[in-house]
Amino acid sequence: MSGPIDAIYRNAAELVTMDGPPPDPSRPFDHAPLAVIEDGAIAVRAGRVVALGTTRDVLASVEIDPKNTCDFDCVGAVVAPGLIDAHTHALFVGHRADEFVARIEGATYADIAAKGGGIARSVRELRAASDEHLIRELAARLKRLRSYGTTTVEVKTGYGLDTESELRSLRAIRAASVRAGVRVKSTFLPLHAVDPALRSLPDGRQRYLERTMRETVPAVFALEDGARPDYVDAYVDTTGFSVEETRPLLDAAKRAGIPVRMHIGQFADIEGAELAAEYGAKSADHLEHVSDAGLRAMARAGTVAMLLPGAAFSLGQSMPDARRMRSLGVEVGLATDCNPGTSYVENLPLVAAFAVRQMGLSTAEAWWALTRAPARSLDWEGGVLRVGGVADVCVLDMPTWRALPYAVGSVRDKFSRP
Amino acid sequence: MSGPIDAIYRNAAELVTMDGPPPDPSRPFDHAPLAVIEDGAIAVRAGRVVALGTTRDVLASVEIDPKNTCDFDCVGAVVAPGLIDAHTHALFVGHRADEFVARIEGATYADIAAKGGGIARSVRELRAASDEHLIRELAARLKRLRSYGTTTVEVKTGYGLDTESELRSLRAIRAASVRAGVRVKSTFLPLHAVDPALRSLPDGRQRYLERTMRETVPAVFALEDGARPDYVDAYVDTTGFSVEETRPLLDAAKRAGIPVRMHIGQFADIEGAELAAEYGAKSADHLEHVSDAGLRAMARAGTVAMLLPGAAFSLGQSMPDARRMRSLGVEVGLATDCNPGTSYVENLPLVAAFAVRQMGLSTAEAWWALTRAPARSLDWEGGVLRVGGVADVCVLDMPTWRALPYAVGSVRDKFSRP
Repeated sequence: MSGPIDAIYRNAAELVTMDGPPPDPSRPFDHAPLAVIEDGAIAVRAGRVVALGTTRDVLASVEIDPKNTCDFDCVGAVVAPGLIDAHTHALFVGHRADEFVARIEGATYADIAAKGGGIARSVRELRAASDEHLIRELAARLKRLRSYGTTTVEVKTGYGLDTESELRSLRAIRAASVRAGVRVKSTFLPLHAVDPALRSLPDGRQRYLERTMRETVPAVFALEDGARPDYVDAYVDTTGFSVEETRPLLDAAKRAGIPVRMHIGQFADIEGAELAAEYGAKSADHLEHVSDAGLRAMARAGTVAMLLPGAAFSLGQSMPDARRMRSLGVEVGLATDCNPGTSYVENLPLVAAFAVRQMGLSTAEAWWALTRAPARSLDWEGGVLRVGGVADVCVLDMPTWRALPYAVGSVRDKFSRP
Repeated sequence: MSGPIDAIYRNAAELVTMDGPPPDPSRPFDHAPLAVIEDGAIAVRAGRVVALGTTRDVLASVEIDPKNTCDFDCVGAVVAPGLIDAHTHALFVGHRADEFVARIEGATYADIAAKGGGIARSVRELRAASDEHLIRELAARLKRLRSYGTTTVEVKTGYGLDTESELRSLRAIRAASVRAGVRVKSTFLPLHAVDPALRSLPDGRQRYLERTMRETVPAVFALEDGARPDYVDAYVDTTGFSVEETRPLLDAAKRAGIPVRMHIGQFADIEGAELAAEYGAKSADHLEHVSDAGLRAMARAGTVAMLLPGAAFSLGQSMPDARRMRSLGVEVGLATDCNPGTSYVENLPLVAAFAVRQMGLSTAEAWWALTRAPARSLDWEGGVLRVGGVADVCVLDMPTWRALPYAVGSVRDKFSRP
């Protein structure tokens, strides 16, 4: 712990440490959770924070080697814990902009599905792509996400939907993380949709569920370290899978010691929140439709509500009511839901602009929702800056923490470019 | 017209020329207005387009000098006319993020005004800043706007509000345009608010109007070429100025041969649209509140409706109904309204994402609203790419024109960085 430091971020207009108390739902406008230091600096050695405070204090307390210490001048910018995007489907090939425009022009989901579009198309395109193609596209996307301040990204499978394609997906996620230099948590999402190859068969749905449990789940859970998924996910909704269809997967995950997260209530409340709570899910995501009872169960279980305003915006839905969730004691996170169908969003700070204007979150709560809440949901020590902790930072090109929701669509990382 | 070309943009996934017919309100989903060429290229000499078409055809028709021709490889990107942002208040100092957060935390406009906030604060800060400070801030902001594909920006005064400060503002706008290398059209907006120095006097409002007409207007209209404003603007609303208060300014502009544009109906319909039409305004902007009669008058006068979803989003208002305007024959443009109070937005493609989802514009109409419509409202020949025309282009980092509204908040210019 002596000798010159590896890096210093200094002269920040503000250093947002997020090392304050959790936001109190009854006092959402308290800024204490942010624990802001003006004219701040942070010193790094071996990936850990060795000092933080005002630039003057930090400079006085560390040794800088002009040849070996990276010196980041953060004047006019905000240094903060790297933002965390805890819900993405970022492993996909190409785009589905044509379907988006078709919907604007009056096509229904059924029309698009009848033409082979929707998730089935992403499945077809993923299966047709080479490993290298998958890795290259995801790595490029991770770097774009990074350019908005996001340093940790959860990436789901679910465009594979057969054993081989799900295994390839998990390996590609790991490889892309290394190539892009962006931390990734991987999530295995077999219950995203029924494999399109089976869907038209009379017993296709049942066959898919059986094959998944008999073949895909064991193969995925037996994957080598690194590729083995960090989480298991299921889409519990009228348009996805029922509570009873989902239980076998959740039970298997429990036996394998892999924690779960879930898609809940995007289109209807089928008591997914209660299921998520029952299995101690790390997060329950979407929640456009959820009962107070479901939210109370989540609060008791410590399940984070991961809200996805990009999807609600693109689908023309009402925004989920984050204020109500907070008042029932639920911790709230925000994520992009980056995916080619319903939320082609890479810009995580923009998500905060929606949350503060349209979902009832305070600015302090929005910061918490991009740092501490998703960190907890991903079992990751980041999302906070403190001496001895991991030195995972972003440098946001904005003059104050208050600009996170204020500067709509133009908050970027000062030093990261796609 | 012979010899090597100066620049070529080639291998574009799509070249959007915008050289098609105007969108037909009865067929908004017709894509003909975009006149798209796949695998497109455009060749430039002396600032003009000398060839455009498929990359193969353009390469076969022009002479390239490897040492002197700039070669832009636009693979995977869309080449289009530079986007045009025809309504900004981008000449300001600092920010007002603290006021935004205070509003989220329950403060009213009256609370903020009582503490010296709002437009009065921007006026105070602008007056206190040096010329160099003003120019530096605006030039940096213009480069940020440019990084989202915008090559032409209208910039208003209106944070000066006394003669000297308005003159300084107009000169700073011109200087910043040169420094940033971004084309600017300047607009003189004396009737933005009453000079805060006069506001508290019993006859302050009347004194402000008289001084403006007696002293400020003649001084501004007598400015040297370059600094003389391209347009005159007034904020005609219950929170701004009445129709009768505005007429003397509009009459003076008419006598001086300076065309007008106006802020209309942001909070209430006081028949500003009819006034704009009467004076042949180039654009009437905002239009959250406007009657069918007002819109019909605008359609007859050829006044563009310049819509500002960033402001409606930040203020929690309903979005202006662009579909209704189109069906009444009004040409629609979109702009950021970039300003420190109600719309801290620099990202013009994001504005199209709102317009297509929440204002009833088709994707083709949204393209028109960022190119041809604002070009016409600014008397500028750009907004379209054709042989012999101005070679003013952006290279958007997206795979198809359909992604302009689809990729929410992450469309940027491939070659321009702030």
